[in-house]
Amino acid sequence: MRIGALEAGGTKMVVAVFDGENRCLRKASIPTSRPEETLPKMISFFQEEKLDALGIASFGPVDLHPESKTYGWITTTPKKAWRNVDLVGAFQKALKVPIGFDTDVNGALLGEVSFGSCKGLSDAVYLTVGTGIGGGVLSGGKLLHGMLHPEIGHLRVPRVEGDDYAGCCPYHKDCLEGMASGPAIEGRYGRKAQELASVPEVWDLESRYLAYGIVDLILTLSPQRIVLGGGVLHQEQLYPLIRKHVEELLGGYLSTPEVQDLSSYLVAPALRDEQGILGAMMLGKQKLTEKEKS
Amino acid sequence: MRIGALEAGGTKMVVAVFDGENRCLRKASIPTSRPEETLPKMISFFQEEKLDALGIASFGPVDLHPESKTYGWITTTPKKAWRNVDLVGAFQKALKVPIGFDTDVNGALLGEVSFGSCKGLSDAVYLTVGTGIGGGVLSGGKLLHGMLHPEIGHLRVPRVEGDDYAGCCPYHKDCLEGMASGPAIEGRYGRKAQELASVPEVWDLESRYLAYGIVDLILTLSPQRIVLGGGVLHQEQLYPLIRKHVEELLGGYLSTPEVQDLSSYLVAPALRDEQGILGAMMLGKQKLTEKEKS
Repeated sequence: MRIGALEAGGTKMVVAVFDGENRCLRKASIPTSRPEETLPKMISFFQEEKLDALGIASFGPVDLHPESKTYGWITTTPKKAWRNVDLVGAFQKALKVPIGFDTDVNGALLGEVSFGSCKGLSDAVYLTVGTGIGGGVLSGGKLLHGMLHPEIGHLRVPRVEGDDYAGCCPYHKDCLEGMASGPAIEGRYGRKAQELASVPEVWDLESRYLAYGIVDLILTLSPQRIVLGGGVLHQEQLYPLIRKHVEELLGGYLSTPEVQDLSSYLVAPALRDEQGILGAMMLGKQKLTEKEKS
Repeated sequence: MRIGALEAGGTKMVVAVFDGENRCLRKASIPTSRPEETLPKMISFFQEEKLDALGIASFGPVDLHPESKTYGWITTTPKKAWRNVDLVGAFQKALKVPIGFDTDVNGALLGEVSFGSCKGLSDAVYLTVGTGIGGGVLSGGKLLHGMLHPEIGHLRVPRVEGDDYAGCCPYHKDCLEGMASGPAIEGRYGRKAQELASVPEVWDLESRYLAYGIVDLILTLSPQRIVLGGGVLHQEQLYPLIRKHVEELLGGYLSTPEVQDLSSYLVAPALRDEQGILGAMMLGKQKLTEKEKS
C-alpha cells in the first residue's frame, strides 16, 4: 500500500509517501511560491509512486463541505496567490485516487490522536501558537467542522491589567491572536520572541493570555486533553506558567480528574514536528477505508 | 409505545408521558424540594404508566460517562440536598426500563434539533440566560460531552469599557455568567431585569456581554445555528442588539452564508417552553432504539 501525504503550509509544502505500516518511504519539502509553480512540483513528486490514496492537511480557510461547489478549495486566505485555489481538484485530476482533506491543525491533531499524546481519546484540541494562532478539534471521535471549522485564534480575551499593547490582528486588534501570537510578542516588545527568552515578564504575560484562551476551550469543547504546539511554545518555560494560570482562572470550578492533573492535561505534542505529516497520511488512509466500505 | 420524560430543574421537575407519535398524554409539575420527597412523587407518576423507556434532562453538573461509577448522578451542584444524588439509579431501580440521560441544556437543544429551530442540523448550540448561564452543544450530530460537558456560562469575557460592576459569579466574579446572568443585571442596577425593560442602556450592555460569549462559541464550536433562550431573553429587544454586536465583533472575519444572515443564525427557541420536555422524551426514545439495535 502507498499513501501520499501533503502538509500544506504558507511557507513550505511537506510531501511524503507512506507504506501500509505507516513507515515513511520518501519525504520532501517544497517552498510555497505561486500555485502555478508549486502545484506541478508536488504532483510530480506523487506521480513517481503509484498511490492508493492521498491525504491533505492545509492552511486555510478551506472549504470542508463535501456538498459545496468549492469543496477542497483554499478560500479567503491572506496569501493572495493562493486565494480560491482548488487544491483537492488539482490532485484529483492528476492522480485519480481517493483524497482525504482537512485543515492543517485538524491534521496535526489527527496525528497526535493516532500516534501521539492523544491516543484513544474522543475529545481533544490541538492549539498552535506561532505566526498565527489556530486549533484543531476532535469532538465525539470526529474532527470538528460544523459551519466552517474552528477559528480558535480569534477568541476574545480579557486584557491583562497593565498591558497597553493595542494588538496586531488585522480584523480584531486585541483578540487572542492579536495579543499572543509571535508577531504580537514582537510588536509589544520590539524584539523577536526568541531574543526575549530570558525576560520572565514576557512569558508570564504570554502565558496569561494563552490561559484565557485555553480556559474558553475547556468550557466550550470539554476536551479530554489539549496539545499546545507551534513556534512560540518552543519556549518551554511557558508550559508550567500556562498550567498555573489556567488553574487560577478555573478557580476550582471544574473537578474532573483531568483538570486536577494539568501536567497531563495541557501537554506538548508527542510527535515533535511529525504530527502534521502523519495526520495528513491518516486523512488519506481514512478516505481509502471509507471508499472501500462504500 | 409509552415514553416517559423528566425535565429536572432546580425549582421544579416537569414529568410527562408521550406516545409513539410524540404526543403528550400526561404532564405534571412537581416542586424540587428534597430528593427523599421529590423522587418518590416522580416515580409514582411514571409507575401509573407502563413505560417502554424514560428520558431525563437534568440540572447539573451531572456525570454522563457510562463507564463511570457515578454515571447518572447529579454531582457538585450548589443545591446541597441534591449533591451526589443517583438520579438515573433511582428510576432504574423503580421502573426497570432503558433510561436516556443528559444535561438540561443538551435536552433543550435536542428538542430544538428534533422538532424546532435546528431541525436537520449537525452542529448547533442552545444558550440559556437566566438565573445562570448555560449551554447545550450538538457537534457532528452528537450531543457533546467530552471530558464532562460544556460549561459555557463561565467563559471569560472582556470587560465592556465603563462598566465597573465586579461580577456575581462565586467562582470567577466577572465571567460571562457573573456579568450577564439575571442576578448580574439585578446586582449591577439594584433592580430586577423585568423592571428595567424600558431602560435602553441596560440591554445594550447586556447584549455586548452576550455577544462576546456568542462570538467565542462561533469560533470554537463552529455551529450552524445558535438558539438563545432563558428568562433574560424574554426581553426580546435583546435579539437585534445581540446580532448587531456579534457582527461588529466578528469584524468581517468569517464569510460563511450562515454568519452573513444573523437573523436566521441567532434565533429564539421555536418550541417556546416545550423544548426541554420534548428533548427529554427524545433522550428516552434514542435509548430505546439503541437497546433494540444491540
